[in-house]
Amino acid sequence: MDSEVSVLGLGAMGSALAGAFLAAGHRTTVWNRTPEKAEPLTARGATGARTAVEALAASPLTVICVSTYDAVLEVLEPSADALGGRTVVNLTSGPPGDGRQTAVWAGRQGAGYLDGVVMSTPGGIGNPDVLLLYGGPSAVFAAHRPVLGALGDPVHVGEDPGLPSIHDTALLGLMWSTLTGWLHSTAIVGADVGGGVTATAFTDVALRWMKTVGAFMNDCARQVDSGRTPGGDFPLDLHLTTMDILVHASELRGIDPEFPELFRGLVRKAMADGHGGESYARLIGYLRKR
Amino acid sequence: MDSEVSVLGLGAMGSALAGAFLAAGHRTTVWNRTPEKAEPLTARGATGARTAVEALAASPLTVICVSTYDAVLEVLEPSADALGGRTVVNLTSGPPGDGRQTAVWAGRQGAGYLDGVVMSTPGGIGNPDVLLLYGGPSAVFAAHRPVLGALGDPVHVGEDPGLPSIHDTALLGLMWSTLTGWLHSTAIVGADVGGGVTATAFTDVALRWMKTVGAFMNDCARQVDSGRTPGGDFPLDLHLTTMDILVHASELRGIDPEFPELFRGLVRKAMADGHGGESYARLIGYLRKR
Repeated sequence: MDSEVSVLGLGAMGSALAGAFLAAGHRTTVWNRTPEKAEPLTARGATGARTAVEALAASPLTVICVSTYDAVLEVLEPSADALGGRTVVNLTSGPPGDGRQTAVWAGRQGAGYLDGVVMSTPGGIGNPDVLLLYGGPSAVFAAHRPVLGALGDPVHVGEDPGLPSIHDTALLGLMWSTLTGWLHSTAIVGADVGGGVTATAFTDVALRWMKTVGAFMNDCARQVDSGRTPGGDFPLDLHLTTMDILVHASELRGIDPEFPELFRGLVRKAMADGHGGESYARLIGYLRKR
Repeated sequence: MDSEVSVLGLGAMGSALAGAFLAAGHRTTVWNRTPEKAEPLTARGATGARTAVEALAASPLTVICVSTYDAVLEVLEPSADALGGRTVVNLTSGPPGDGRQTAVWAGRQGAGYLDGVVMSTPGGIGNPDVLLLYGGPSAVFAAHRPVLGALGDPVHVGEDPGLPSIHDTALLGLMWSTLTGWLHSTAIVGADVGGGVTATAFTDVALRWMKTVGAFMNDCARQVDSGRTPGGDFPLDLHLTTMDILVHASELRGIDPEFPELFRGLVRKAMADGHGGESYARLIGYLRKR
């Protein structure tokens, strides 16, 4: 084997992945169904393979990133005999079940397999803060972590190859919740009498505040896992009082209060059930359908 | 003047403030309407004042933290003659208008005045990550910043003494949005087939992800301020596709999708108006009532 890593699929994301391996100094082999896509990478020092099997055979580690899981199998099946003893890392997007099925198939060929997701658009690849999540055997992850580190911050989320996909969805949900709340708050401070505050000025303060919010998340996480949710000095009763101020402040400034009304509704439900002295973590039970 | 700072009002928060000044080595005078509250602080080295005016006269800087703005004026009015040339920092909770009115009153007595909010429960006071927001003249803030630094991370949010209160409301809104989204996502990963993920394990990954979310906030903030919201490689069209996956993943796992449906509804409205190629920042216009 003459390369450290091969990349199959050179769309926008695959090309960014191969470019990051090259930028980190790794000997890289690339392949794409339409070979022109390889040219910018071979110009930067990558080895162009004529076939997928040739690319797979060139490296102990192959990263594949194509349009769908069906396309993954179309590319890999003709190379099945070459997979024994090699590792495939699949960064193609798809639902959790597809990752699990592909892992089973790869296992039958004697290949190590990690399913992964890239928590970024192609432009972020290579930034050390960008998360890439991997699921599959810990030993396989540990063996390839140094090379995968060229792409961003590699995080092993568990042995189950379905976990990266579900984390992807969950983390995007957290992003939208945070961004929507941030837009709502930016609208409130910007709509204030006496001039208002720019979005950038508010965001400087908001990002400092997020350290405190992160500490709350950690506290609530321990409570969720323990099943005990004492309210301490910030129980749901007190959240409700300050949520009322937020809803009122929104209305005063012409901002639709439906977003804060949603979490206020959850607090009210929990209080109606007698949980007003408990913590915000108690609300997780109210997100489940009855 | 024989102290550096005086604290008026020794409820749970006032006592924590005075305790943090003492812990930082500042000579501190304390006063409370019911004097017993001062005892734990005088035992730690604070000077107990018999009257509010005696406390005010003892230091160039007085921090007041009582139950309401009406109570602030009840305490300060008898001391009006002693206020000239001194600074009052008011950390009492109340609406933005109350801070502005109190600033006008203090100005008439010749006092420097900052209105402030503590973004923490009393237990967090003295933690260098805890935010305290101040509004009022920059020069007054700059003069007292070193002593105020004993309480946490002091941030000057502007000259308008109404700004800390509205920031308080906006930042709590951001916190609830983030925490509710985090609970929703924790429920999704925890409800997953094949065992699920603990809240603490998910939160480890989520907090790393929040760095990326913070970078999005900064990008969106610049767009909101410029009024230009190009979608780049992550336009609203693409957000919608992935939000559909989140709604579906929620339903599959028995999690109520109303929270993601709310921000998906905003994206759909913006797309219906022809903004599908723009960024998430474009949604700020859809939070305002039509």
